[in-house]
Amino acid sequence: MKEVNASIITIGDELLIGQTIDTNSAFIAKELNKIGIWIKRKMAVADTKEEIIQALELLSKDSDIIIITGGLGPTADDITKPALCEFFKSELIINEGALENVKTIFTQLGRIITDRNLKQAEVPSNCKVLDNKRGTAPGMWFLHNNTIYVSLPGVPHEMKGLITDAVIPEIKKTFALPAVVHKTLLTAGIGESDLADKLQQFEDELPAHIKLAYLPSYGMVKLRLSAKNYDLEDLEPEVLNYFNNLKKITAEWLVIDEDLSIQEAIFKILSAKNKTLATAESCTGGYIAHLITSIAGSSKIFNGSVISYANEAKIKLLGVEDNTLESFGAVSEETVLQMLDGVLDQLNTDYGIATSGIMGPTGGSDEKPVGTVWIAVGKKGKMQAKKLKFRFDRKRNIELTAFAALNMLRKLVLEDEEVQ
Amino acid sequence: MKEVNASIITIGDELLIGQTIDTNSAFIAKELNKIGIWIKRKMAVADTKEEIIQALELLSKDSDIIIITGGLGPTADDITKPALCEFFKSELIINEGALENVKTIFTQLGRIITDRNLKQAEVPSNCKVLDNKRGTAPGMWFLHNNTIYVSLPGVPHEMKGLITDAVIPEIKKTFALPAVVHKTLLTAGIGESDLADKLQQFEDELPAHIKLAYLPSYGMVKLRLSAKNYDLEDLEPEVLNYFNNLKKITAEWLVIDEDLSIQEAIFKILSAKNKTLATAESCTGGYIAHLITSIAGSSKIFNGSVISYANEAKIKLLGVEDNTLESFGAVSEETVLQMLDGVLDQLNTDYGIATSGIMGPTGGSDEKPVGTVWIAVGKKGKMQAKKLKFRFDRKRNIELTAFAALNMLRKLVLEDEEVQ
Repeated sequence: MKEVNASIITIGDELLIGQTIDTNSAFIAKELNKIGIWIKRKMAVADTKEEIIQALELLSKDSDIIIITGGLGPTADDITKPALCEFFKSELIINEGALENVKTIFTQLGRIITDRNLKQAEVPSNCKVLDNKRGTAPGMWFLHNNTIYVSLPGVPHEMKGLITDAVIPEIKKTFALPAVVHKTLLTAGIGESDLADKLQQFEDELPAHIKLAYLPSYGMVKLRLSAKNYDLEDLEPEVLNYFNNLKKITAEWLVIDEDLSIQEAIFKILSAKNKTLATAESCTGGYIAHLITSIAGSSKIFNGSVISYANEAKIKLLGVEDNTLESFGAVSEETVLQMLDGVLDQLNTDYGIATSGIMGPTGGSDEKPVGTVWIAVGKKGKMQAKKLKFRFDRKRNIELTAFAALNMLRKLVLEDEEVQ
Repeated sequence: MKEVNASIITIGDELLIGQTIDTNSAFIAKELNKIGIWIKRKMAVADTKEEIIQALELLSKDSDIIIITGGLGPTADDITKPALCEFFKSELIINEGALENVKTIFTQLGRIITDRNLKQAEVPSNCKVLDNKRGTAPGMWFLHNNTIYVSLPGVPHEMKGLITDAVIPEIKKTFALPAVVHKTLLTAGIGESDLADKLQQFEDELPAHIKLAYLPSYGMVKLRLSAKNYDLEDLEPEVLNYFNNLKKITAEWLVIDEDLSIQEAIFKILSAKNKTLATAESCTGGYIAHLITSIAGSSKIFNGSVISYANEAKIKLLGVEDNTLESFGAVSEETVLQMLDGVLDQLNTDYGIATSGIMGPTGGSDEKPVGTVWIAVGKKGKMQAKKLKFRFDRKRNIELTAFAALNMLRKLVLEDEEVQ
C-alpha cells in the first residue's frame, strides 16, 4: 500500500519576522500522525501571492496532502484565497452556508456586519467548504491533480476545531491509512550521550520500521519508539516488546513510561494515592502552580500556593522567621525549609514544594551568583532541601528550577511508597 | 543595492510529529530582521540525509544565507554533519579548537569523555568553526557557490549564544545591509475587522516600502508598521510619522505604543508610579503571577500571590467568609471582591487582582457553565468586579482570563492617574 504523506504551509509575515511562534503546525502534525500520515515538510512563507503559489507548486510535487494555515482573515494582508484562486485557476464565489455562519456569529455577538465581514463567506469556486463552528472564516478542501489541499484559518482554536471535526474524518474517508505506534518514556538524571551509549546495542538491533528518537527537554530526556506499518495486529505487540526492553535498560532513570510531562506524572502519582500538594514559590513565581493547574482535574490534588516574592510575604504568610532571613538570607536552606513547613500548615496538604533563588539577570552576589537556587520538598516529618546552580537566562532558570523541584518531589513520594 | 535574504531549515523528526514546538526559528528571524535581513522561507525536515540535502538544494536557489538548526547531537539520529559533507562533497575532520572545548566542558562537569563525545569535535573540512561557549557542538559557517550556510545546534540556549556572539557579527562583515524599522502598538477592545475598517484609508495611503500587519493575540490586536530601506536617515522619521498617525486613529483602544505584552505594559506603568501589585488567583492558578515574575526586575512592583485553589485556602489565607462561599459560591462577584480585599491586606500592596472561574473541561453547571469567570481588580476603596464568559479549552480560558484581568487593572490604574 502506498504511504500517504502530507506537508504543511503556514502563511504570515509574523512567522517570518519571529513575532509569532508557530504552534499550529505541531498540532496538525500530531493529529495527522495519529492516523498514520507522516509530515514530509513544513514550510513558512510570507503574506504574498507569489510566495504562497511558489510554496504550493514546490510541495505539491511530492505531497499527497497539503495543509495550509493562515491568511484567511478579513484584512488586506490576508491573501490566501486570491492566491489559491490563481493557483487553481478558479474564482471567488459566495458560499451560502459560510454566509449564514457569518451572519449567525455576528447576530450572536450583537455586532453589525460590514462588507468586509461578508467577504469571509467568499471561497474559490472549486472548493468544498468545511464548516467552521468557532469563527467566520470557512475551512476549504480541494482536490487538484491528485493532491488534496486544505486551507484553514490561522487562529489556533478555529484551526484545531476544523482539523478534529472535519479534516481528519475527510482524510480517513479519502485514503487507506497504515498503523502508527509511538511509545514514549521520560528519563531524568542522565544526559543524552550517556543514554545513547547505554542504548547502542538496543538501537543497532531495532528493525528498520522502528525508530528510536532522543528528545532532550529541561534537563530530562524523552525516548520515543516510532513504528509505522500497514498491519496493526503485528505492530503493537512488536513495539511493546522493544519498549519493555527499553524500560529495563533505562530503569534507573525512568520517570514515567508514558508521553507525559513531569507535572502530569506527579498528578498521576498523587491522584492514585489520594494525596494533596501545595507550593511555596519565591523564585519560580507561580510557575509550578501554573504547570499543575494547567492539568484538567488538578483541583483533586492541588490546594494552592503562596507566591512569597517579597520577604514580608515569606514572614507573614509562611511563618519564615525574621531571624532566619537576616542570618541566612532568602536564598538559603533554612529559608526554603521554613517556607515548606509553613505552606504545609497553611494549605493543609500532604506534600509541599518550596523554591527560593536568584533567576537573573541581576540580583546575584559573589557568594550567591545568578542561578543559585534552593529547593525543598517533602511532608511533615520528612523534608529534603537541595542547592542547585543554573547558568542560563531568567526564563530557562525558572523552568529548570520548576522541573527539578517536581522531580525531587516525585522521588520523595515514590520512596514513601516503598517504605510503606 | 541587492536585498539580502535568508532561509531557515530546522531539522528533526520531533518537529514533524509535533512533539516539539519550534521556537528557534522565531528567535533567528527576529535577530536577522534587526540587521535588515528578511526571512524568505522556513522549512522543517526529517532527520534523514536525503531530506536535509533536498532542502539545502531547494532553498539555495534563492537564498543568500541558509541557517540550519538541529541534528548536531551525539546520537544516531543526529545526521546533519554527514548530510552537509555529502552536500558540499567534503569530509569530516577533527577541529582542534572544538576538541579543546569538549574536553574543557567535560572536565568542568567532572565527567568522563567517551568516543561519542569526541565526535562532537568533528566538522566538515570546508567549514569555519564558530565557537560554542555553552555546549559541545560547534557552530559551522560555510561559503559555497555564493551562498552562506550556517549550521547550529538545536538546543535553544546554545543556538541563541551562537547567533548573537558569532553569526550576526560574521553576517555584518559579509554583507552590506539595509535599515529596517518596525513600530508596533497594542490595542484592546476592538476586533481585527473593525480595526481594518477604521484603518482602510490609512492603509491605502501607505507607500510601497511600508507595510501594516494585524497580529491578533489573546483578544487583543497588535498593529505593526514595517519598513525596509537602504537609507536610515530618511526611514526612521518617515515611519514615525505614519506611526503617530496610527496612534491617533487607534487612540481609543491603545494599550501601549511599543512592542510589549500587556504584563510588560503594566510593569512599566506601575514601576513609573512606584506602586506594587499582588494577585489572588483561583482559576488562573498562578499564571498571572508567572507572567509578571517572568519580567526581569519584577520584584520592584510584585510582592506575591495567594493561589487559593481550594475553598479552605480562600477562607484561611484571604479571609473570604464561609458565608459568602455558601451563599454565592466560589465563582461569584462577592467571592472575588473578598479575595481581592484579602490579598491587598495580606501582601500589603497598592493594587491587586483576583480571579475565580470554571476553566473546564468539567466543573460547569447550568447556572455557571464552563468558561464563567469573575475578575476583580483595584485598590483599597476602589474595587471593580466583572463577569466574563469564555468558550475555549482550559489552556486558552486560563490565558484569556489572565490577559483580561491585566487589562482591567491597567485601565483602573490609568484612570487613577487622570483623577490625581
